[in-house]
Amino acid sequence: MDLISIRDLDRKTVERLLDSADAIANGKKKPDMGGKILATLFFEPSTRTKLSFQSAALRSHMGYLDFDPETSSLRKGESFADTVRTVEGYADVLAIRHPKEGAARLAADFASKPVINCGDGANQHPTQTLIDLFTIRRCKGRISGLNVTLLGDLKHARTMRSLVCGLAMFGANVTLVSPEGLEMDQAYVDEVKGRFDFKVTARNEPDYRNADVLYVCRIQQERFADPYEAKKITEKFMVKKEAIEAAREDLVILHPLPKVNEIEAAIDGMKQAKYFDQAHYGIPVREAILEYALG
Amino acid sequence: MDLISIRDLDRKTVERLLDSADAIANGKKKPDMGGKILATLFFEPSTRTKLSFQSAALRSHMGYLDFDPETSSLRKGESFADTVRTVEGYADVLAIRHPKEGAARLAADFASKPVINCGDGANQHPTQTLIDLFTIRRCKGRISGLNVTLLGDLKHARTMRSLVCGLAMFGANVTLVSPEGLEMDQAYVDEVKGRFDFKVTARNEPDYRNADVLYVCRIQQERFADPYEAKKITEKFMVKKEAIEAAREDLVILHPLPKVNEIEAAIDGMKQAKYFDQAHYGIPVREAILEYALG
Amino acid sequence: MDLISIRDLDRKTVERLLDSADAIANGKKKPDMGGKILATLFFEPSTRTKLSFQSAALRSHMGYLDFDPETSSLRKGESFADTVRTVEGYADVLAIRHPKEGAARLAADFASKPVINCGDGANQHPTQTLIDLFTIRRCKGRISGLNVTLLGDLKHARTMRSLVCGLAMFGANVTLVSPEGLEMDQAYVDEVKGRFDFKVTARNEPDYRNADVLYVCRIQQERFADPYEAKKITEKFMVKKEAIEAAREDLVILHPLPKVNEIEAAIDGMKQAKYFDQAHYGIPVREAILEYALG
Repeated sequence: MDLISIRDLDRKTVERLLDSADAIANGKKKPDMGGKILATLFFEPSTRTKLSFQSAALRSHMGYLDFDPETSSLRKGESFADTVRTVEGYADVLAIRHPKEGAARLAADFASKPVINCGDGANQHPTQTLIDLFTIRRCKGRISGLNVTLLGDLKHARTMRSLVCGLAMFGANVTLVSPEGLEMDQAYVDEVKGRFDFKVTARNEPDYRNADVLYVCRIQQERFADPYEAKKITEKFMVKKEAIEAAREDLVILHPLPKVNEIEAAIDGMKQAKYFDQAHYGIPVREAILEYALG
Repeated sequence: MDLISIRDLDRKTVERLLDSADAIANGKKKPDMGGKILATLFFEPSTRTKLSFQSAALRSHMGYLDFDPETSSLRKGESFADTVRTVEGYADVLAIRHPKEGAARLAADFASKPVINCGDGANQHPTQTLIDLFTIRRCKGRISGLNVTLLGDLKHARTMRSLVCGLAMFGANVTLVSPEGLEMDQAYVDEVKGRFDFKVTARNEPDYRNADVLYVCRIQQERFADPYEAKKITEKFMVKKEAIEAAREDLVILHPLPKVNEIEAAIDGMKQAKYFDQAHYGIPVREAILEYALG
Repeated sequence: MDLISIRDLDRKTVERLLDSADAIANGKKKPDMGGKILATLFFEPSTRTKLSFQSAALRSHMGYLDFDPETSSLRKGESFADTVRTVEGYADVLAIRHPKEGAARLAADFASKPVINCGDGANQHPTQTLIDLFTIRRCKGRISGLNVTLLGDLKHARTMRSLVCGLAMFGANVTLVSPEGLEMDQAYVDEVKGRFDFKVTARNEPDYRNADVLYVCRIQQERFADPYEAKKITEKFMVKKEAIEAAREDLVILHPLPKVNEIEAAIDGMKQAKYFDQAHYGIPVREAILEYALG
């Protein structure tokens, strides 16, 4: 079973995946895939996604192979199709990351083994979204009806597009907060609204006093022509301890990591900061995904 | 037991290896090497040979270590002998690839653990040859008496030299087809003829209407001084759909991969194209080789 | 349990570790860590330390993950603390090497999982010291009272500082032999003398006629301003076959490897040369360390 986009999954399937990850995280379920092999094919680096999948494979009694395109035949001019067709013969499931949109679905077409999309360009990153939904549900007991604020550069962040779709599926109230010019593509938001019944509002001011969940992503200085402007805006959108103390006491702060300076370091030690837990939940969720993919 | 050159093996040993690989490919035999460790020492990159060996190790219940000379002590001036003597202490069997001819045999002299040659310069690549023989035998039921055409740059292709020796051992009829100036070294062909009773003919025209097996390898444009000439010749030797349709219906087309444009893409989907199967057969054949090496 | 510096361990703990490694080396003990995961985080390359730990992990029925900072989020500006906090969620024990002194202890503060120091700058390299002590004890039956000569650049060699502390703990008689200007830091030697009752003398002449153990480390030509002077000194301190034949017959020669030209190649085949054994003892010693850390 391929996992290419969160949009291919219905709510029931997502819930089954989250339930399975829950059982694994609680130690109630220990998948044993009997020595099956995961091949990671990362055409652009993403250390933690790769390590997290390899760790999940080891935890599930699988081995892993790491295909490194840098030193590979691709440099001799081999086609993407040929690479996928060859490597799939060495493994039982392929985890692919690629800088180009659609690459994962293309690979799934070529391969007879299951393909897991670990991010294709600005398009989808479904395993991250499943981790995000899992973390929210585990911290808050539910997703439906929660006020979830997404904050940062919503135009370029791949994880945010996938996440909006996941939150919509579960009926969360989504607030999109971004600097002017870095809003999430309106056509995409409209399309999600057409598919799911959920509330979504957009804003250019960082305000999350009413949020149950605050999901932060990076604003890269390179997005702005004027360095002074860039500094002013990243400073304005930086999450500060003071603001968190003024927000709901049971606020949950998430971040896909790595973070640089979008969250004040003093927040790391606060009970609201759940982003390291979120990273660690990557293991049980990806164990559940491997089990799903393999069958 | 070392595996350095196909020329060190007698026909009986090769047949035993192919039989063993057959049993593994059919699921009738599942080697369990009980956690023994393979170390890959690749002094030049060859992604698929390495991955294929690592996959075979995992399938045989072994672990693997990947020694990367790029980031290693070699750069601090350590001798090849010292590297081999050190790394062999970490593993049970060494798979070595090296740009210099004779490096694998040298390593086998230094090491007390078994050494498998994964290609040493333009010299030998015995595990590829075993895969090639295995694929031919599996696709055609035998090797003896088959018309096997080797097509491409036979002067520089390492796999072809090993393969001629393997085909000669089994009494195939070999036709060597290459552009003028890229013929296989005549002294080498004569030496193989002196050792085995087999037919071999050479030709500079791409004609394989009578072939049971067509084994294609690359012709690098860089081999020609004149780019126009290069283009003309690679075009002339390119395997085209039309020519395959005019050849024997049960023709088997092989290629060591990666391929670039020496085989028309439309052929990939034809039943004659067996090069991806050939790549996948690398796993059972290398499982058989690991078992042979470890004893 | 962290392992940051040999100075954190008392003699009893060291002896227990060496005994455990002995049992493993003799095949009397086969640790089974039940699929636990080692993550290697090497912020500077050290191929053999890393491979040796990975091999020890495989031998102890563990898996390993290799975190490569080169292709990682660190380059996106992530803090060392965040990296450690994230990666520890993927594994059960972390083996860290870092160019900066104190980095391992810092990591141990951030991490809730055990941290093993695999070398932090010019500071400590405790697992190498345990291997050195193990090798001496295994070759000579004891450490106490032995004449151990350390020869080379004792100013910069990290392993030598750790080793002096280990030898002092066991009451060896240590002779420090180095070129002028490359002596071990006197304040450090004095501090160790203040902690342990042992004899230590220093000298600028390479003389080891009275030594039971000769531990050689490199003298880098780059340490000298004048290339002619450099050549003269490295030549003078090079260990030669002739000198070994004039030394004690049961002399044991050690070296942390890789070596370049500080030991004459002809010595490699002599029974006094124990440096490859020393490298191979890295596996049982590190198996014992993993058990200690996880236990």
